[in-house]
Amino acid sequence: MHSLRSPALRPLSLYPNAAFSSSSHSLRFFTRKLPIFRDPKLWPSSSTRPLISIANCSSITAKPSSEIHRSNRGGSESDEKLRALRELFTKPNVEIDAYIVPSQDAHQSEFIAECYMRRAYISGFTGSAGTAVITKDKAALWTDGRYFLQAEKQLSPSWILMRAGNLGIPTPCEWLNDVLAPGCRVGIDPFLFSSDAAAELKEAIAKKNHELVSLYNLNLVDEIWKGTRPRPPNKPIRVHNLKYAGLDAASKLSFLRAEIVGAGASAIIISMLDEVAWLLNLRGSDVPHSPVMYAYLLVRIDSAKLFIDSAKVTPKVMAHLKNAGVELRPYDTILSEIEGLAKEGANLWLDTSSVNAAIVNTYKSACEKYFRGNGNKKSKKSKMRPSDGSTSQSKVPTGVYRMSPISLAKAVKNDAELDGMRNSHLRDAAALAQFWVWLENEIMNGTKLTEVEVADKLHEFRSKQAGFIDTSFDTISGSGANGAIIHYRAEPGNCSVVDAEKLFLLDSGAQYIDGTTDITRTVHFGEPTPRQKECFTRVLQGHIALDQAVFPENTPGFVLDPFARSSLWKIGLDYRHGTGHGVGAALNVHEGPQSISYRYGNLTSLQKGMIVSNEPGYYEDHAFGIRIENLLCVVEAETPNNFGGLVYLGFEKLTFVPIQTKMIDLSLLSTAEVNWVNDYHAQVWEKVSSLLDGSARQWLWDNTRPVQKQ
Amino acid sequence: MHSLRSPALRPLSLYPNAAFSSSSHSLRFFTRKLPIFRDPKLWPSSSTRPLISIANCSSITAKPSSEIHRSNRGGSESDEKLRALRELFTKPNVEIDAYIVPSQDAHQSEFIAECYMRRAYISGFTGSAGTAVITKDKAALWTDGRYFLQAEKQLSPSWILMRAGNLGIPTPCEWLNDVLAPGCRVGIDPFLFSSDAAAELKEAIAKKNHELVSLYNLNLVDEIWKGTRPRPPNKPIRVHNLKYAGLDAASKLSFLRAEIVGAGASAIIISMLDEVAWLLNLRGSDVPHSPVMYAYLLVRIDSAKLFIDSAKVTPKVMAHLKNAGVELRPYDTILSEIEGLAKEGANLWLDTSSVNAAIVNTYKSACEKYFRGNGNKKSKKSKMRPSDGSTSQSKVPTGVYRMSPISLAKAVKNDAELDGMRNSHLRDAAALAQFWVWLENEIMNGTKLTEVEVADKLHEFRSKQAGFIDTSFDTISGSGANGAIIHYRAEPGNCSVVDAEKLFLLDSGAQYIDGTTDITRTVHFGEPTPRQKECFTRVLQGHIALDQAVFPENTPGFVLDPFARSSLWKIGLDYRHGTGHGVGAALNVHEGPQSISYRYGNLTSLQKGMIVSNEPGYYEDHAFGIRIENLLCVVEAETPNNFGGLVYLGFEKLTFVPIQTKMIDLSLLSTAEVNWVNDYHAQVWEKVSSLLDGSARQWLWDNTRPVQKQ
Repeated sequence: MHSLRSPALRPLSLYPNAAFSSSSHSLRFFTRKLPIFRDPKLWPSSSTRPLISIANCSSITAKPSSEIHRSNRGGSESDEKLRALRELFTKPNVEIDAYIVPSQDAHQSEFIAECYMRRAYISGFTGSAGTAVITKDKAALWTDGRYFLQAEKQLSPSWILMRAGNLGIPTPCEWLNDVLAPGCRVGIDPFLFSSDAAAELKEAIAKKNHELVSLYNLNLVDEIWKGTRPRPPNKPIRVHNLKYAGLDAASKLSFLRAEIVGAGASAIIISMLDEVAWLLNLRGSDVPHSPVMYAYLLVRIDSAKLFIDSAKVTPKVMAHLKNAGVELRPYDTILSEIEGLAKEGANLWLDTSSVNAAIVNTYKSACEKYFRGNGNKKSKKSKMRPSDGSTSQSKVPTGVYRMSPISLAKAVKNDAELDGMRNSHLRDAAALAQFWVWLENEIMNGTKLTEVEVADKLHEFRSKQAGFIDTSFDTISGSGANGAIIHYRAEPGNCSVVDAEKLFLLDSGAQYIDGTTDITRTVHFGEPTPRQKECFTRVLQGHIALDQAVFPENTPGFVLDPFARSSLWKIGLDYRHGTGHGVGAALNVHEGPQSISYRYGNLTSLQKGMIVSNEPGYYEDHAFGIRIENLLCVVEAETPNNFGGLVYLGFEKLTFVPIQTKMIDLSLLSTAEVNWVNDYHAQVWEKVSSLLDGSARQWLWDNTRPVQKQ
Repeated sequence: MHSLRSPALRPLSLYPNAAFSSSSHSLRFFTRKLPIFRDPKLWPSSSTRPLISIANCSSITAKPSSEIHRSNRGGSESDEKLRALRELFTKPNVEIDAYIVPSQDAHQSEFIAECYMRRAYISGFTGSAGTAVITKDKAALWTDGRYFLQAEKQLSPSWILMRAGNLGIPTPCEWLNDVLAPGCRVGIDPFLFSSDAAAELKEAIAKKNHELVSLYNLNLVDEIWKGTRPRPPNKPIRVHNLKYAGLDAASKLSFLRAEIVGAGASAIIISMLDEVAWLLNLRGSDVPHSPVMYAYLLVRIDSAKLFIDSAKVTPKVMAHLKNAGVELRPYDTILSEIEGLAKEGANLWLDTSSVNAAIVNTYKSACEKYFRGNGNKKSKKSKMRPSDGSTSQSKVPTGVYRMSPISLAKAVKNDAELDGMRNSHLRDAAALAQFWVWLENEIMNGTKLTEVEVADKLHEFRSKQAGFIDTSFDTISGSGANGAIIHYRAEPGNCSVVDAEKLFLLDSGAQYIDGTTDITRTVHFGEPTPRQKECFTRVLQGHIALDQAVFPENTPGFVLDPFARSSLWKIGLDYRHGTGHGVGAALNVHEGPQSISYRYGNLTSLQKGMIVSNEPGYYEDHAFGIRIENLLCVVEAETPNNFGGLVYLGFEKLTFVPIQTKMIDLSLLSTAEVNWVNDYHAQVWEKVSSLLDGSARQWLWDNTRPVQKQ
């Protein structure tokens, strides 16, 4: 699928252009902080350059589609919530003039649990991307072009809809600086902002002398939500089998401790949920699509503590953790632990682009409190100086502010992870073959199927495969013009029919016990137009060019991106998204740090064992959309030379599902490209046919026959 | 030719990595300051990544090849020079402990006049790249791998040869910081360092509390050179015909004045010689290969002054300048003019990457002297406050530190410039056809021709063409293994023979009255090996891929670079230089700001009217070298679509000389690539044949016949 939140896309910061003006490329470009609004400059518009345009980094709601439009229960309920919220503004220890409610959870997750959907609760707007800002007399909600219509429907008249990306629409900070009298107090829940994002926010509102007020012990939305707020998820977590993980948790912890020592730190806090899951070989089901659980992990040289709701921890998981030397702590004791750590003089490694402001600021304040304050002036605080006899007590601890070392380690898959990815992709391919033959038959028989029904049926086929757990993201099932909406999500009762008249784009993926899939195919059940065929063929040529690329080690992904666009460029076409994102092994469908994109900022080189999607596309507004996506694994290329003593790299395909040859204008393909198509289909048959029988097997046979140029 | 000093290659600064760690990409990457030594990290080595490796930014000596080895007249003369130089260290107003002698002139020129070759004079080492540093008891010379042997021969025992790029070799600053006691005075001629370079130097030596001492009125080398020093060049300059320039000087000055006003400045100093020549439609012959003259140009809103030796100014040029409102001033009055400008309160636009430290510091000091000093304290200086009644006198002037606006304006050619380029390329092609048929015949007849003799004969053929002025750089005539030396320069008496046994690489170019050429062809007069053919064919595929590229406007050159390498990468090969540099129109053969390179820092987009070289290559050490180079002009591509409302761009070829089809392994080419070759050769015949007769015409016919895949 096209990356819904590719970490390598330009970060959406509070400040347009902040990312590009930054001096530290790669770190900034991987920053995982989520936007409190979408930078309008990043959005496509016919007048702006596509190459500096889109990004879609927002969270996807966990709500089933059928509930999407249920939330707007009229203005009175919404007004009541706002009234209750504003009442809290004046409480002692709160005393704020405005409150910002972002979409995020405390871990910068792409998919979040319903209990953390505070912005949706307070505003009534349930889209995946949005920021609510409430002052004493105004309430405004920012969202992007995908959601203007939905927001108009869902917001009560008390809310101002800020159509981010439209000309003249201020950013939330600009708006606050405009509507508040100078010197106000702007409240946030510091858990919901990465440390970097909070720092930027603070700086932006300081221009009008506003103060950023972090409310540590009170989320104002939760306070008014109370009784009706869903419980935090607490389904049991499970051990990720070593045969899929390839490396036990203790070994990963050893690696991490070596990194900690190397960085001059004595501890690290891991807050990204997939990093915690990967490091400990655990999997959870706290959020849709990503097999993760809410937790923080604190690793020290001689200990490791997992902050988690113990109700999720089965005896088996408990034993697994004990084996790896990991102790349990309650999820909500993280801040006191961080404070204690600083008190003990530990140098804490913090990735401020992902770790939330609550944790970072607690650490900094505690260091100040227990050490610097002590050293500078003999204050009363000196009495609080630790006296446990540890040798470190007299050293002033310092934070080590660096990118998390887990990110790259997780991205470079080991053999077991790759085997799991390969195997799960074959089962996924079998499910897709069953699905496609079913769909073709239904359409031939004249059944009226909606985009949602088609997606539901795909889910049904996949769920029959061994080890199926969940979809890896919300299926993009786009018929005709809907295919041109890059992040289209079909809604029941309000979606198109899939038929023989239109192109159909289907971008979907699954979580299996052993791997994560993500595949897009575009098909026509009737007669595609010459225009559609030409566009499809050029997208395919880009797909082939990237698939076949060989390149020296140390090459960043963006160097390969032009290969995927070249054929479209020849006729003046392009697409407004990156070409490839990283994919986790039985983990998040979008992960960094690598990417293949027209954005030049991500200098992470592609490395052997990394997985990337290969998904060029073309989208003709109000007409059709085309995308062809396989997942690839970076492998050593067996080149006859190794100029410069370098290893040359290439790709191994993980995805084996036929590409509809009816869509190909063979006259445009070179012999080598025709050979690629035939070779790919031969491999599809060879690898997948044994998993199929009956009509699906026949369909696979029919759809993997070689094509020939006239 | 491969760029000898492509402005877009990573600048060789005093500080390794300084360029990459800078926050302002493009400006830093175009900085024209020249290195006082070569960053070893930039040089190829089998253990380093080729993509962050080479650059060759050095000046080329103006000496004819035959004189190259003449300078070393033994140790005694060299020692005498050093003794005399050190004697000057103790003079009043000098009082220095060390003196740095770089290769540069005062204008950061690629090619410099002999009277400015101070480093060669003082050290005896005549290579194009080098930095001499002389302390009271030591003398060291830094040069790079190309010149180690030559420097060993030419340096007297009094000199330490610093083999830059070799492990453990300090930079000049590191060395100074090591050998000098802390707190010493290090002297430079501030005209010979760009302001940026001087600032970096100052900072580097400040680590050991050394002071950088700018000696404004005394170049110590000139002082001891005296009697034998060549006179500064003073050949007459000429008006560059409007039919070639396309725009008169007055119009260009108007454009520049609009830029000045837009930048909030009131004056600009232009110091790059090609910028002065372009702006005023003048050409000179002060240095080899570049048709420029030594001059500074100061443009104000209501005046323009050219600082030049008036002996060069003919009555016709004088009238031309008068017409454009340009007055003459003596070349060496530039600093007093700058001082006066500051006194008057003018805001001066200075490109500190190219304008020398003498000018920048004079302006800054004068502003301080006449205004800030005045404002802060009622010093005696306040008497010097201007009292000419101008309204600006009370305003404190400020420098506007920005890239010169001429750089981009000059790079984007107008129709007249393009016509001149096209026409001169056809005459150049005719000369090359005559040359190649001559060479083939000589070799067939068994004549023993050296690389130098071949290059001299090429010069002879070119010089017969209408409008020929000079070569545009020293011809690279490399037979066999010499072809693998990217910056090879054949020397008489010490060079290889061109014969039917070896590959022959010829990279050459010319200056004509109407245009500048630069072309490389690689040929075999006997039977190439399959290996040579495969490498040649893959280089050709890269050349074709870049030539045929279509891309949206706003695309930086580095996006296209992978197209040129892709075919080589497939078999694990690569080349350690960029793929394309800018070329001036009847001006410098290397110009910025655009480039096509694997270096990601140059964000300048390719724009309609820009000229770039297309010169992929492959070099097999000690065996052979291959490069295929044409010049291209960026043009609008006539695409059937314009996605995003953008113009799509492509290339028009300027160079029309056959590519030796004997070298092509046709089995590797796609049909489209075969068609490219045949189409190109058809164009060569069509455009060039009418300029030829006899055997050259027959040769052109023979070498433009279509090829066919079996």
